[in-house]
Amino acid sequence: MPRAVAGPEIERLIQLIARLPGLGPRSARRVALHLIKKREALMAPLAAALTDALGKIVECRRCGNVDVCDPCTICTDASRDRRTLVVVADVGDLWALERAGVLNAPYHVLGGVLSPLDGVGPEDLNLARLVTRVHEDEVGEVILALGATVDGQTTAHYITDLLREANVRVTRLAQGVPVGGELDYLDEGTLSAAIRARTQM
Amino acid sequence: MPRAVAGPEIERLIQLIARLPGLGPRSARRVALHLIKKREALMAPLAAALTDALGKIVECRRCGNVDVCDPCTICTDASRDRRTLVVVADVGDLWALERAGVLNAPYHVLGGVLSPLDGVGPEDLNLARLVTRVHEDEVGEVILALGATVDGQTTAHYITDLLREANVRVTRLAQGVPVGGELDYLDEGTLSAAIRARTQM
Repeated sequence: MPRAVAGPEIERLIQLIARLPGLGPRSARRVALHLIKKREALMAPLAAALTDALGKIVECRRCGNVDVCDPCTICTDASRDRRTLVVVADVGDLWALERAGVLNAPYHVLGGVLSPLDGVGPEDLNLARLVTRVHEDEVGEVILALGATVDGQTTAHYITDLLREANVRVTRLAQGVPVGGELDYLDEGTLSAAIRARTQM
Repeated sequence: MPRAVAGPEIERLIQLIARLPGLGPRSARRVALHLIKKREALMAPLAAALTDALGKIVECRRCGNVDVCDPCTICTDASRDRRTLVVVADVGDLWALERAGVLNAPYHVLGGVLSPLDGVGPEDLNLARLVTRVHEDEVGEVILALGATVDGQTTAHYITDLLREANVRVTRLAQGVPVGGELDYLDEGTLSAAIRARTQM
């Protein structure tokens, strides 16, 4: 704003909100105003929840997930099948797979994918611990749940090489037509993959 | 999420973020994850800024603005021309006008507009204080900076009637083509208003 129209506390709040993903200066002001209007119902609980989470959230030293305990809720979940290990790039991917609810196995969060352009090499990822876990936990199958991007697939091939000596089955997600997908909106790569991987009716 | 994949603190944080305007469950998770990743750089300052603002923000008893002091920064700004009073529906409108930077006058925040459909009547708005201010401060012009909606214009007419006895000039914002606006994207109402209010070159 050109002039100070309110104390620096409100300006500071707007600036911090504008740094959240998906929010620009305009939406940050709208969010700040909404919080100011709902001080008791929303701002106070949010401030408390942030402070609470801030003091408690830790990274799981075992799998790289974030949680309020270490080892995390998933690593200590006895109902999960430890013969399978699901490798994901990011905690967001772990959350997405958990929402899908088809897997009941522990995870291993790499913390990214190999990306020569962005200067991300194998030493930047949580890979050493992955090899150790595969051996120690006697894992039978490693599912590489990585994105179907160049970097994601490069990382998948790198991990496959890394685990070649280990007696473990390494699989990756199927590529094909997304559920609800219309053929004429799909790119050629996806269509080719879907045709190559076609299944019997 | 179908199962608990993390402590309740993280779930609670996501739920609160999802209640912010413009954010749904998916973007709330992205925001929460971003905060969790940037604990020191963003989550901690945001928690502190919220707690700080929460303890300090008050509504100005004079004009209805929100600030960390009462009377607010604008009401105590001696450089503003007190012979003019700008009436707005909401604090967000006040912020928008301050960004435009063309006015240098105090404001009066109504806290909404008259809306029979939503059950907002004159007694729900900050109107009594407006009349008192106009008399006490010897205001010469009241600018009704209200939206060009049915409710906004109803409110403008109501206030004009309310101030008929007071010796004050009541004006409202011009209606016309927005700056950068293409004629063929404008609605008929705006075009009619712009033609009726046409000005000499």
